[in-house]
Amino acid sequence: MLCENMPGVQSAAMTLILPAGSAGDPAGRSGSATVLSELVLRGAGQRDSRQLTDYLDFLGLQRSCSVGVYHSRFSAAAPAQRVMESLAVYSDIVQRPMLPESGFDAARDLALQNLAGIEDEPRQKLLIMLREKHYPYPYGRNPMGEVADLKALTLAQAKEDFNARYVAHGAILALAGRIDFDDARRAAERHFGSFGGRTGDVPVQPTPPVSFTHQPQKSEQTHIGLAWPSVKETDPDYYTVRLAVEVLAGGMSGRLFTEIREKRALVYSVWAGYTSLKDSGSLMGYAGTSNDRAQATLDCFVAELYRLCDGITPAELARAKTGVKANMIMQGESTSSRCGAIAHDFFMRGRIRTLEEIKEKLDAVTVEQVNDYLRRHRPGPFTIVIVGPNPLKLPDVR
Amino acid sequence: MLCENMPGVQSAAMTLILPAGSAGDPAGRSGSATVLSELVLRGAGQRDSRQLTDYLDFLGLQRSCSVGVYHSRFSAAAPAQRVMESLAVYSDIVQRPMLPESGFDAARDLALQNLAGIEDEPRQKLLIMLREKHYPYPYGRNPMGEVADLKALTLAQAKEDFNARYVAHGAILALAGRIDFDDARRAAERHFGSFGGRTGDVPVQPTPPVSFTHQPQKSEQTHIGLAWPSVKETDPDYYTVRLAVEVLAGGMSGRLFTEIREKRALVYSVWAGYTSLKDSGSLMGYAGTSNDRAQATLDCFVAELYRLCDGITPAELARAKTGVKANMIMQGESTSSRCGAIAHDFFMRGRIRTLEEIKEKLDAVTVEQVNDYLRRHRPGPFTIVIVGPNPLKLPDVR
Repeated sequence: MLCENMPGVQSAAMTLILPAGSAGDPAGRSGSATVLSELVLRGAGQRDSRQLTDYLDFLGLQRSCSVGVYHSRFSAAAPAQRVMESLAVYSDIVQRPMLPESGFDAARDLALQNLAGIEDEPRQKLLIMLREKHYPYPYGRNPMGEVADLKALTLAQAKEDFNARYVAHGAILALAGRIDFDDARRAAERHFGSFGGRTGDVPVQPTPPVSFTHQPQKSEQTHIGLAWPSVKETDPDYYTVRLAVEVLAGGMSGRLFTEIREKRALVYSVWAGYTSLKDSGSLMGYAGTSNDRAQATLDCFVAELYRLCDGITPAELARAKTGVKANMIMQGESTSSRCGAIAHDFFMRGRIRTLEEIKEKLDAVTVEQVNDYLRRHRPGPFTIVIVGPNPLKLPDVR
Repeated sequence: MLCENMPGVQSAAMTLILPAGSAGDPAGRSGSATVLSELVLRGAGQRDSRQLTDYLDFLGLQRSCSVGVYHSRFSAAAPAQRVMESLAVYSDIVQRPMLPESGFDAARDLALQNLAGIEDEPRQKLLIMLREKHYPYPYGRNPMGEVADLKALTLAQAKEDFNARYVAHGAILALAGRIDFDDARRAAERHFGSFGGRTGDVPVQPTPPVSFTHQPQKSEQTHIGLAWPSVKETDPDYYTVRLAVEVLAGGMSGRLFTEIREKRALVYSVWAGYTSLKDSGSLMGYAGTSNDRAQATLDCFVAELYRLCDGITPAELARAKTGVKANMIMQGESTSSRCGAIAHDFFMRGRIRTLEEIKEKLDAVTVEQVNDYLRRHRPGPFTIVIVGPNPLKLPDVR
């Protein structure tokens, strides 16, 4: 249980994460965690589906649930007292859900519909494929599942999966906002004190070979995705990498934005960012462009990645630091952002970083460190996925 | 100039709105305000395009610009001191932009690309069409413009449009966060004191006839949009309507969500909401569904709208009040949200509502008021737009 008191706010946010992510979906049952995350909300404890939904809205919670690589995540934000009251009902949801047959059918149908909708959203489709191709199996699996697996999934299997993965070991309850630590600890003990169990390990296959994939799609735009390895979050070079990426893709003065969008008007949307698994880090980039400019965009994107290795300027680094820190200050004022951040830190690092610590680490990075790092670490090997009508020529990857 | 001091935050947000919206784009020049909003950022005052972008990022601003029906809007958020420093440069942007030829070509190209991308996003396409069909011309025009108009647009026309619409009369500068009112007033006077000019009125055509439109699209999902008239924001029944809509579509206990998604699993996504022009209000609804469930979804959606007129329960009203108020408290802690809200209030009402006032108005609404209103105001006449492969049968609109 993690807790951060934020002075000056009336609200609080809660994040409850359970070790039920897409990587751990049993073989042939992809999407199982997603169906389960919908199903557990259809009645829990003494409340049937309708009563449960009504009660959560009676508390005025802004809530969401999502499934990632490692976890299922239930989040809620509201005036602080309501968030504390919600702990009892979330305890029911994750420990005593009803898992009704009718709810299962509906939850599975919705998962299938959501999956079908991806065909109409080529950008989202691209990002799903990029993760699948880039990450070692099963870390790149689509949390939404696959059609055949979802169709074959049964309620009995979902119940089995619930018993195996909605467990205490590896779960995190995080609270941030107008929260008293002792109150929070007592409430967590009362509602989750008897929560037990642990889930199995996820067998990992070797990293897939580097690949270049073209997914034909009758679309007006071509969507381009690139991924390549980077340091993990606990690496000493982590802050160096974050600032280098900010120079590449942060704000509107980032190189991708100025070179590809502002100067050449090749794309409406372009970005790159750092993303991590527990034991590895990656950089991913995206560009969406008209079909006739797709090749130029891909070439220009890769050229900018190599040009970064030639070094950045002190002014670029200064802007990057300002941008990352300003963003941190803004997020530090949001109970939901802060709550998500402390849960993430604890999972990745086993401890919580203060905003002050992050600021000091960023400030300590010098332009020599960044340039030395960039010189020693040329980007690649690349995973490249193209969704669009025409195949593209693989750029000159040195 | 509007200003709200928010205790307990380090950040501030700024919104600068100018009377250059899509409704006022000159005839045959749709999209002009959008191109202009991109173009003014390509060099202003003593800074060329690159220097301007670098400086804005040096300030660490999270910024955006957008074009709506009435206005072009420039927004920025950051640690408070940086937001105050940004006023000088935004003063350059809206009063002394360079409007370079090369920047114009790029800005227009980007607008055309953005427009082409809509073909890959049937949901967004639907919402654009719904506004076009529902609102009286020119209020329903797509701010992104039309292809032929954008292609014909010249730099000389953009400059003419800049002179006519980037003017002080009808502009609003709003600040919220860690802001001292006297400082803000002095800074506004220094940077915007000599800003003058006023723009012409927008000639409005009568409300278009009620319509039912099917836009054929080879998509996996059918996208359904409905719009119908409601009260304007300054109407005494406004809060009554907001709470009725919350019962219909708020949270996850809202009727659309429980009846269409939870019970019948007809849709993955469904919502309805209140939206307003200055002199009128509307309700709009959306559902995205698989092609074979589209007719059932439309029928069920319309049936729920009529069923609402039979009345709501005290428990539903209580949840609706809690939901709207909790949402308000969360938004009240965000400098960006609060800044946008005070600018909106001033434009719509000529004054700013405090959160306390809104809370009192909501609390005062009784279930009898809501039910009386709903009995007297059956929904319709409807504007309905369908984007998908198959036409649907118009439901029985009583």
